[in-house]
Amino acid sequence: MLGVQGMHPTRITPILDLAESYTLLNRSRKTPRDLLRGRTLINLFFEDSTRTRTSFELAGKRLGADVVNMSVANSSVNKGETLLDTAATLNAMRTDLLVVRHSQSGAPALLAQKVEASVVNAGDGTHEHPTQALLDALTIRRHFSGLHGLTVAICGDVSHSRVARSNIHLLCAMGCKVRVVGPPTLVPRAIAALGVEVYHTMEDGLRDVDVVMMLRIQRERMKGGQVPSPREYFRFFGLDGKRLALARPGALVMHPGPMNRGVEIDSRVADSEQSVIREQVEMGVAVRMAVLDLLSRGEDMR
Amino acid sequence: MLGVQGMHPTRITPILDLAESYTLLNRSRKTPRDLLRGRTLINLFFEDSTRTRTSFELAGKRLGADVVNMSVANSSVNKGETLLDTAATLNAMRTDLLVVRHSQSGAPALLAQKVEASVVNAGDGTHEHPTQALLDALTIRRHFSGLHGLTVAICGDVSHSRVARSNIHLLCAMGCKVRVVGPPTLVPRAIAALGVEVYHTMEDGLRDVDVVMMLRIQRERMKGGQVPSPREYFRFFGLDGKRLALARPGALVMHPGPMNRGVEIDSRVADSEQSVIREQVEMGVAVRMAVLDLLSRGEDMR
Amino acid sequence: MLGVQGMHPTRITPILDLAESYTLLNRSRKTPRDLLRGRTLINLFFEDSTRTRTSFELAGKRLGADVVNMSVANSSVNKGETLLDTAATLNAMRTDLLVVRHSQSGAPALLAQKVEASVVNAGDGTHEHPTQALLDALTIRRHFSGLHGLTVAICGDVSHSRVARSNIHLLCAMGCKVRVVGPPTLVPRAIAALGVEVYHTMEDGLRDVDVVMMLRIQRERMKGGQVPSPREYFRFFGLDGKRLALARPGALVMHPGPMNRGVEIDSRVADSEQSVIREQVEMGVAVRMAVLDLLSRGEDMR
Repeated sequence: MLGVQGMHPTRITPILDLAESYTLLNRSRKTPRDLLRGRTLINLFFEDSTRTRTSFELAGKRLGADVVNMSVANSSVNKGETLLDTAATLNAMRTDLLVVRHSQSGAPALLAQKVEASVVNAGDGTHEHPTQALLDALTIRRHFSGLHGLTVAICGDVSHSRVARSNIHLLCAMGCKVRVVGPPTLVPRAIAALGVEVYHTMEDGLRDVDVVMMLRIQRERMKGGQVPSPREYFRFFGLDGKRLALARPGALVMHPGPMNRGVEIDSRVADSEQSVIREQVEMGVAVRMAVLDLLSRGEDMR
Repeated sequence: MLGVQGMHPTRITPILDLAESYTLLNRSRKTPRDLLRGRTLINLFFEDSTRTRTSFELAGKRLGADVVNMSVANSSVNKGETLLDTAATLNAMRTDLLVVRHSQSGAPALLAQKVEASVVNAGDGTHEHPTQALLDALTIRRHFSGLHGLTVAICGDVSHSRVARSNIHLLCAMGCKVRVVGPPTLVPRAIAALGVEVYHTMEDGLRDVDVVMMLRIQRERMKGGQVPSPREYFRFFGLDGKRLALARPGALVMHPGPMNRGVEIDSRVADSEQSVIREQVEMGVAVRMAVLDLLSRGEDMR
Repeated sequence: MLGVQGMHPTRITPILDLAESYTLLNRSRKTPRDLLRGRTLINLFFEDSTRTRTSFELAGKRLGADVVNMSVANSSVNKGETLLDTAATLNAMRTDLLVVRHSQSGAPALLAQKVEASVVNAGDGTHEHPTQALLDALTIRRHFSGLHGLTVAICGDVSHSRVARSNIHLLCAMGCKVRVVGPPTLVPRAIAALGVEVYHTMEDGLRDVDVVMMLRIQRERMKGGQVPSPREYFRFFGLDGKRLALARPGALVMHPGPMNRGVEIDSRVADSEQSVIREQVEMGVAVRMAVLDLLSRGEDMR
């Protein structure tokens, strides 16, 4: 499960359907704990992300897997071991599912070639974050009759965002109209080639959309001149009530978290009735359970 | 389970009784592992405490819960997320039990208002540490016919101690006579209003008590002029054999750990037959199992 | 399980046999998950080692134990608690199996005297790393008809290596001829007393051996003048194809990991068909399962 680029709708829909059923099982605390019994899931995180790691950890445990967390700060990578040696080691321990987050685009794909375990990309560089796109699609689908024909605006720091990239691929594949909204410095020109419309003001970009998907400002990934001040950023690209009013009535507000309140999103909007930000988190666990389930059955997720 | 202040003895006794039964089950390795099967316990620690975290982790695992540890050093709180957003995220993941340690008094109570999960306060600022008071009460009860009428001296750095505060509330509620012993700089005047007697020398304070409860010197929480030198502190307020001899014969010696040997307590006393310090640790796991058990049955612990 | 020194072959062989059977169970994901059900295993690591910690964690989980990781960076040892108090605390929590790694030789043995839990030495100072020696022996045994009569060269930084020390004890006990190869600065003179032959060049030491066991350069443990430059070290003591050709045809290449590729071992050799480095990792989990299994049955492993 390395990315959603090129994934066909006939592959995507069954994942969302299965995740939907896991939502119900999670709520009733009746998940099938024998499903991954005896299987080993390793969370191999080369970048910190408590939220995503916890989501995968819960997904694995609720299906009965043995889950081991490995964060690189404490790992032998610090002793000079190569990425591939680390992966080979985990593979030799008879790992079934290897969840990988890495700052380098393509690292999970590289690992997947070298190990027998199924590799799930939990975010690699500026490349992809496939389970995030799946959970976002599921969240949207639950509020409309389907995904086809919806207009979704993805707003903010698109150039550093693997979340944006995976969402563009998946939403386009499912028949959404996708807009990208952000300052020219944070929206790469080449993005139009993915079939999206580019807007450089929130006022233009949000008009009549069904979904407003805000991105997190990735200050840690920006270089020198790129970094806007939080106040300045909010003034031009923050989502407040006035801007949200330009979207369709009842348009959904989304954010992958963690939020910078007052920077990319106003607190009142984040906590409003239109916000489905917490539902996204819930869908995250369900989607990951669906992915682990399918991978453990030998399903090809590419 | 946010604190023990105001808790009625008729609520406290059943918790201690249940914990007593868990003590036996722990010893025979026959804990009811289906009790929390399918339930999720998250240890959300904003302050490091391996000891308390491990105690809750074992309590949860021995009852069959899925336990996830989250220490803030690695969490998205570092990425600027608010406390409430972190809690909302964990709640959305369908967490049943949220164990929280935080440096700010009142943080767990704030979280409890915002999440559906049952919140257990594992220590908040200088406010409360309710499971510590329960485990201390259980330890004492096991050595006497009951708690009523016993005299307990709580000694040392009372002003920074949530352990002291929770113990005062609980022991007073159970009918103990509670003394507080420490230098005026480390015993707040207002403490007398809680119904305790205040002593400023160990020689006066320990006379004829049934239990000597030492506190850990919280050097990390003290400000400038407050910090005594370890030698000086031990000379005036350390517990040694001579001072212990002032208490009733066979008086119990307690300490919440981790101990600063030679600072607040002499090693020979800590390892003497009167010391129940290790039994406190054992009771800690049992009390936490009882609390998790009761919370999972929807018991109101306030 | 504090060391292999003095262990009799009649004790070693059953461990290897049991581990061999766990290898098969791991591959088929059919480990006996009730074996350690209700038992508590604590990984108490005073030195970081993700690899060894993960191996023990998986071993414990695959046998159904409750596994808790405790790394000292976050523990109350930082609050001034003594090693023995930490151990006493874990023991009081009714720990059954205590896996300890410590920078001081003899620390696990000291702990073992004070706790009821079975203690497994996961590496102490420059003393022993018994499960590493067992997994190495198992790996070798799988490729030959037995261990007796084989010639094994242990190469590199012998003086800082507990891996070398444990392997020397165990391989000698099993009837291997053991050679030690390294620069005089990294091979202590006293080592000859253990019954090994000492060589100071790879060219002499590797001639006609059945197994070449490389050690990791422990730069972090070396003092001032001892530290060779990586290039210089590789030139004289690195294992490359030319040197390996001096060994018997098909000689095994081993390394305990993590490898410094290009320092003590050439990448082509590490990835060659003669390399059993990944198999060592797999055997590691199996050997640890065998050790935990035997200890939980009350077997005396000294």
